[in-house]
Amino acid sequence: MPGRKSPGRKEALEGVASRLPRATVLRLSWYLRHLQGLDKAQAEWVSSHELAEALGVTAAQVRKDLAAIGSFGHPGIGYRPDELASAIRGVLGLDRSWSVVLVGVGNLARALLRYAGFRQQGFQFVAIFDADPAKVGQVVENLPVLPMERLAEVVRQTGAQLGIISVPAEAAQRVAAELVAAGIRGILNFAPVMLRVPLRVSLVSVDLTVQLEQLSHLVLHHSHANGRNVQQRSGSRLA
Amino acid sequence: MPGRKSPGRKEALEGVASRLPRATVLRLSWYLRHLQGLDKAQAEWVSSHELAEALGVTAAQVRKDLAAIGSFGHPGIGYRPDELASAIRGVLGLDRSWSVVLVGVGNLARALLRYAGFRQQGFQFVAIFDADPAKVGQVVENLPVLPMERLAEVVRQTGAQLGIISVPAEAAQRVAAELVAAGIRGILNFAPVMLRVPLRVSLVSVDLTVQLEQLSHLVLHHSHANGRNVQQRSGSRLA
Repeated sequence: MPGRKSPGRKEALEGVASRLPRATVLRLSWYLRHLQGLDKAQAEWVSSHELAEALGVTAAQVRKDLAAIGSFGHPGIGYRPDELASAIRGVLGLDRSWSVVLVGVGNLARALLRYAGFRQQGFQFVAIFDADPAKVGQVVENLPVLPMERLAEVVRQTGAQLGIISVPAEAAQRVAAELVAAGIRGILNFAPVMLRVPLRVSLVSVDLTVQLEQLSHLVLHHSHANGRNVQQRSGSRLA
Repeated sequence: MPGRKSPGRKEALEGVASRLPRATVLRLSWYLRHLQGLDKAQAEWVSSHELAEALGVTAAQVRKDLAAIGSFGHPGIGYRPDELASAIRGVLGLDRSWSVVLVGVGNLARALLRYAGFRQQGFQFVAIFDADPAKVGQVVENLPVLPMERLAEVVRQTGAQLGIISVPAEAAQRVAAELVAAGIRGILNFAPVMLRVPLRVSLVSVDLTVQLEQLSHLVLHHSHANGRNVQQRSGSRLA
């Protein structure tokens, strides 16, 4: 547990947070994104209605989500953006920094390494790896590409907790096993394959074809969904 | 409605499909991925238990999901993989081809254009665009980069229904409006910003930082989640 704080209220909140539905946790990310986009000089308060409007959900849903993490708005006024952002960052683990290693230095990796949003939220790439000897030694975004043989040693040295897999499908399970063996606690997988990892390791998979399939499903059935509205539409990205 | 077929059973299924929960539609993609990975010579039947095991959900969930799209297994035996895959492809809109345009030719776009999974599922890139005059005219994966001024004309000519946005956040809303004006029916957005599109246009957003935040949340709260098991773990990618 990186940066574990004192028990008490924090402890209770973590107990709550671990039982949050996945859809709620996704919405927390999006609430935070909206809060971070507010003009700090102007936004002293943010209402559940404003957050609801931004995400395309109901204000009741917003209040329920935020109550679940212990943030209760001031009735008739709303939430203090700074307080609320801080509470969400705590639940998402963004009140600390995370060291990330990446395996598989192709185009997707280059896009990820250049992506400013990661660093802003506390995710820091500390090392990148590739099995291709021709890539080893190249420098991408100021990081030298390291050989896979150095994975365990570098994870130990850097204390990296998270690993990103951006290798082809056929190599992904082997890489996942190597990350697990190296002590990585959570894996973000971009390879289009279902990985098996031990229970102690968390896994989030992003299959880009799946995303396109969700979209084709929505487009195909759109005209039949008379009840579809803003809420459901953005449910497509939030739930 | 592209390639709309005869009414009757198809009509009824589409009516059902439009009311499927988002999490169910996501699992359909993953069931299909598993079915496509089966050895055709050997797998005459697939059981709900096998599908459940592959996805990390319960067999009851599998049967419920598949019944919701009208696929009922043979009791005690299972499902015929070909039949089931065909039913899922119909619901996901993969029984037809989709023409896709992409706007914003950076590293992420190059990764997407090279991604074999899209074409295998019927998604075909027909044109790519960039606002940067220095990129216009370059050829990426056999497609010339076109200027934004040609978007509407090319969408009309190609009949493209889907658009992918892989531009920086600050340009994404403008690009979305241009795609909508050009007649695009569904948008897959990779820019880290919440887009507004008319109700008639479907939207799926993939914010890569959000995915990492979901992972840090899972890792952070893992040790507190004693009840967490395979089902919940892969719920992290499925629900």
